Amino acid sequence: MALDIVIMAAGKGTRMKSSLPKVLHRLAGRSLLQHVLHTAGTLQADRIITITGHGAEQVETAVQAPHLTFVRQMPQLGTGHAVQQAVPALHDDGTTLILNGDVPLIRAETARALVEACGGTRLALLTIDLADATGYGRIVREGDAVRAIVEHKDASPAQRAIREVYTGMMAVPTALLKRWLSQLKNDNVQGEYYLTDIVAMAVADGVPVVAAQPAAEVEVLGVNSPVQLAELERLHQRALAVQFMDAGVRLADPARFDVRGSLSCGADVEIDVNCVFEGDVSLGDNVRIGANCVIRNARIAAGAVIHPFTHIDGEALGVKVGAGALIGPFARLRPGADLGDEVHIGNFVEVKNSTLAKGAKANHLAYLGDATVGERVNYGAGSITANYDGANKHRTVIEADVHVGSNCVLVAPVTLGAGATIGGGSTITKDVGAGNLAVARGKQVSLEGWARPVKQKK
Amino acid sequence: MALDIVIMAAGKGTRMKSSLPKVLHRLAGRSLLQHVLHTAGTLQADRIITITGHGAEQVETAVQAPHLTFVRQMPQLGTGHAVQQAVPALHDDGTTLILNGDVPLIRAETARALVEACGGTRLALLTIDLADATGYGRIVREGDAVRAIVEHKDASPAQRAIREVYTGMMAVPTALLKRWLSQLKNDNVQGEYYLTDIVAMAVADGVPVVAAQPAAEVEVLGVNSPVQLAELERLHQRALAVQFMDAGVRLADPARFDVRGSLSCGADVEIDVNCVFEGDVSLGDNVRIGANCVIRNARIAAGAVIHPFTHIDGEALGVKVGAGALIGPFARLRPGADLGDEVHIGNFVEVKNSTLAKGAKANHLAYLGDATVGERVNYGAGSITANYDGANKHRTVIEADVHVGSNCVLVAPVTLGAGATIGGGSTITKDVGAGNLAVARGKQVSLEGWARPVKQKK
Amino acid sequence: MALDIVIMAAGKGTRMKSSLPKVLHRLAGRSLLQHVLHTAGTLQADRIITITGHGAEQVETAVQAPHLTFVRQMPQLGTGHAVQQAVPALHDDGTTLILNGDVPLIRAETARALVEACGGTRLALLTIDLADATGYGRIVREGDAVRAIVEHKDASPAQRAIREVYTGMMAVPTALLKRWLSQLKNDNVQGEYYLTDIVAMAVADGVPVVAAQPAAEVEVLGVNSPVQLAELERLHQRALAVQFMDAGVRLADPARFDVRGSLSCGADVEIDVNCVFEGDVSLGDNVRIGANCVIRNARIAAGAVIHPFTHIDGEALGVKVGAGALIGPFARLRPGADLGDEVHIGNFVEVKNSTLAKGAKANHLAYLGDATVGERVNYGAGSITANYDGANKHRTVIEADVHVGSNCVLVAPVTLGAGATIGGGSTITKDVGAGNLAVARGKQVSLEGWARPVKQKK
Repeated sequence: MALDIVIMAAGKGTRMKSSLPKVLHRLAGRSLLQHVLHTAGTLQADRIITITGHGAEQVETAVQAPHLTFVRQMPQLGTGHAVQQAVPALHDDGTTLILNGDVPLIRAETARALVEACGGTRLALLTIDLADATGYGRIVREGDAVRAIVEHKDASPAQRAIREVYTGMMAVPTALLKRWLSQLKNDNVQGEYYLTDIVAMAVADGVPVVAAQPAAEVEVLGVNSPVQLAELERLHQRALAVQFMDAGVRLADPARFDVRGSLSCGADVEIDVNCVFEGDVSLGDNVRIGANCVIRNARIAAGAVIHPFTHIDGEALGVKVGAGALIGPFARLRPGADLGDEVHIGNFVEVKNSTLAKGAKANHLAYLGDATVGERVNYGAGSITANYDGANKHRTVIEADVHVGSNCVLVAPVTLGAGATIGGGSTITKDVGAGNLAVARGKQVSLEGWARPVKQKK
Repeated sequence: MALDIVIMAAGKGTRMKSSLPKVLHRLAGRSLLQHVLHTAGTLQADRIITITGHGAEQVETAVQAPHLTFVRQMPQLGTGHAVQQAVPALHDDGTTLILNGDVPLIRAETARALVEACGGTRLALLTIDLADATGYGRIVREGDAVRAIVEHKDASPAQRAIREVYTGMMAVPTALLKRWLSQLKNDNVQGEYYLTDIVAMAVADGVPVVAAQPAAEVEVLGVNSPVQLAELERLHQRALAVQFMDAGVRLADPARFDVRGSLSCGADVEIDVNCVFEGDVSLGDNVRIGANCVIRNARIAAGAVIHPFTHIDGEALGVKVGAGALIGPFARLRPGADLGDEVHIGNFVEVKNSTLAKGAKANHLAYLGDATVGERVNYGAGSITANYDGANKHRTVIEADVHVGSNCVLVAPVTLGAGATIGGGSTITKDVGAGNLAVARGKQVSLEGWARPVKQKK
Repeated sequence: MALDIVIMAAGKGTRMKSSLPKVLHRLAGRSLLQHVLHTAGTLQADRIITITGHGAEQVETAVQAPHLTFVRQMPQLGTGHAVQQAVPALHDDGTTLILNGDVPLIRAETARALVEACGGTRLALLTIDLADATGYGRIVREGDAVRAIVEHKDASPAQRAIREVYTGMMAVPTALLKRWLSQLKNDNVQGEYYLTDIVAMAVADGVPVVAAQPAAEVEVLGVNSPVQLAELERLHQRALAVQFMDAGVRLADPARFDVRGSLSCGADVEIDVNCVFEGDVSLGDNVRIGANCVIRNARIAAGAVIHPFTHIDGEALGVKVGAGALIGPFARLRPGADLGDEVHIGNFVEVKNSTLAKGAKANHLAYLGDATVGERVNYGAGSITANYDGANKHRTVIEADVHVGSNCVLVAPVTLGAGATIGGGSTITKDVGAGNLAVARGKQVSLEGWARPVKQKK
């Protein structure tokens, strides 16, 4: 039986005070809508129809997903009007699941339970019991059967005591949904078409109205303001932290741990305070991450130690750190940094688009860009690969066991043969043969009794 | 009608365990007393009299404000005695508002409401209802009228059940205040003169005693210990975070956001975790601040991106960052750094007292001090302006489109003409003409079969 | 009267999901077992017997303490069986105190109170009243006398209402303990020997059973999972923060403050957000620590200012920072950095195993390793001590008042005489006499009308 999913994403989100449409605001590194689409994508839906409106073009450009189509709601005349726009895109039968693009943390299990509660024949509402239901539409029941959703302002004192409220999500037999939508009226103060009016139609038609509930309140929390966004971000990050800890990851402070994307951790991983993981990051067994690291799109192999204040950003190319490598503090690994086992990258060192073989070291104040570095190379403090001539990038090849002195410049393209030694302070513009010592510097001269400059009067 | 404000600031603050007088301890980057003076300064008072005592000289030197005079209370014989010292400085009529130098977050609206409650004829107390009033002076009323402040230790069981307490702030008709102060007695165990004794005098004199209340408890919280100071700091920072979010700023974690001074934000500003803003900072539309940045006295224009671990401190001169500029990670901008649009400052780069025109780049491990840098200049990795000869600072001028290679030293004063190229590893001591290539380095020589040093036995 | 302490440390800690035995997991930088051993070590015990089992070898290697012996429990057949293994190591009389290796924050005062409650004649249990006792063994009393510990699953409804529970710690007359242990049976579902069965034996023998209670719940919290470990870490860090604040230390945010080891602070110390202190650190009067610093094994003298993003790690050698020194931001001090008064170490500067005398400065992008630096030396931006020839480390001596220019390389061993000046960009391989100017660089040449490389088509 066909399952269609309608995602409400037309709202402006005035209280966000942003030029970005509300559903494009990010939680844990992904837009609210992407979260919902990701969950929808796991439900084996035949069609996913996202209703756009405010910032429609921006929304439609920003998100992509299989089976996804967009329908525009212009102007916005209420939730019922929104779903009416999707009618041509829906199957004739089967079930339609209605989700909200600004309620990002709905779980697939909950959505499936809602669809099952519908069972192709019932109107199934997702409801939740709140400690304080003020402002929400109450679920009025007769016995077990749901009889109505009553808005807070219309509720009697007895109804206001009801704690079960409607969450904005429902699953409906599609054929019934189409019929009911065609009967919606806008004879209310706002002149809008309300989707919730179909509950009364279902009751009138003798269609059972049932409810399903989520496992946790966080699943139905919507985002209407930056404060709500930040609160949901923290709830979500806290839940992620607990998940990682339950899997054995040791976090120095779960309240200072942010994952925005996909983080996978081996056994006995330790993560110190205030680290941020973005994109796709994997940490092997026994990896230790020091305080205040920011790591994005990187694979870090077993036993590597990332010291505090390390910034790794693989962007599209990714970064690889080999087993037992020591990185930082104050290191920066950029896209295409591919470090072998036991490589050491120390303080104030930047590595970009370079391969370092096993045991190579660049411990102090250095830049390695577009370089191929052999095993056991010692790359001296302050040394720089001059990979860019102002127009093109060139490659530096440093073969195994080369020792590059301090403050050298390696003007690419250039190759330093295996075992070569480069004297400190040399600018190397020509290839150096294997085993050779290359020096390129001025002769040291001394002036005795030289008079220092003196402080000028101003 | 004259308004005089008396600020109590004579206390020692023993529990602060500090050599700094209590009112000089800082909350959100300003002393407690400065907060109160700032608020007092918005009330159109004719005179602001601060009562100093412990560390009087230090306090009087530390704070400045219009209409501010200091009166010393030596020795300290109670709150009534403190205000007695201010009597000669007060007008003969009008209203006197009494604030506390260690209660920093009182709002001007609340202070105004207290003055209005006084209305020149009534004794107006600032009171608050506490969930747990233990230890506080209770407000005893008959009907609506306040009859007494009863200290906790003197209170009957019925009085101890009262949740309304006195906050230490009041507004009093000045003429009455003077009369009552002259009648205070110190016939109590401590031998002190209590300001609160005037409540009984007012009642005896038939002067109405009324109460005003603050909007929030935080307004009346005093600081007596480092723990209280830290708690108030967090409450205040949390409130600031909510204010910024309500204005549309997106904060990754409101609990890790510190503003100490004046921060202004345009639309769609995003601030990642653990950032600190000090002094006077403005962020234009769409500015993004990465994790772990510390920014002080800086103007950052629209669309600029500040990557993680960036330290900006404009001190007195300020720092400017142009529209669309990319800064960091691990960048440091110091006083007088004035960066044009689309300037790039990368990792381990320090800029001080230098102007960079549109599109100039210094992406890696470099120092620019006392330099004027033209449009589109590419300033190479590891290059340094040698601006200091040990006695004086000199200026480096790098005209448009210059390409400075890696690990160069530009010995100031020196000018590199437009479009010039400086070879990597060069120490430039003389001006370079426009379009020229300048190189200053040794010739590369190679020794074949050079014997590396071997590990010495120890 | 002899006091023996038995520490239970044989458990696997399955929920830790770690290859590390549970008691070796770290809280505040020390293993859980080390915490308990440290406390035990203050109790003047004659013998401390730690029962190991899972990962016994690892545990026995990891911890050391006076009077400490290990006894292995293989296989693990319950808590009573564990203590049975210790019997041969116990005195014949006196008192035996039983502690848990995974309950790290038990205070010595509490342990002493428990031993005193035992008094050599009574069975003394450490108990605590919990708001929610679900799952714990209840303390059943008759009048004041303890009659039994009843496991949750065996408890009647009335017993389940009891909030007093057993904590797993007890003090027992050793002779009685030995007799009771010999009578333990394992006729239960798990086939284990339970230490708590001795309570019934004591009651049967007419030995009084009494209880002592800890001052705070945190003392009896055990660690069974990474979540519990993180929670206990935060409770402990919060308690430490309060201790430091009560002693006068100003913390910008107590929730972002981590001490793992021993931190001592003078008067008027200020510590900004998100700092971590490890090992043995002392901060003198008026020291200020900026945001995001990580400091380990260091002594920082009065009035020094550590700017944000500073990483200090003295490892075994330690780091010393002199009075009034200015360090950072983005500085790294490594083992053996010994900085005199008023030394300045600026951004992107690394110092290792070097002594800097009073007033010496290295403000920008520099490396000082194995160097002796005299008073008032100015060490230029980008300059490097080339202390390592690929095989051995050599020393650089820079005498007082030397001015080292920018981007110099000092090839050790080398001595720069007092007052010498080194021109920018020089590689110095030979000693420089006092007062001399040394330069080692190429002559500056200029090519007019040089054609820049052009962008290659790809």
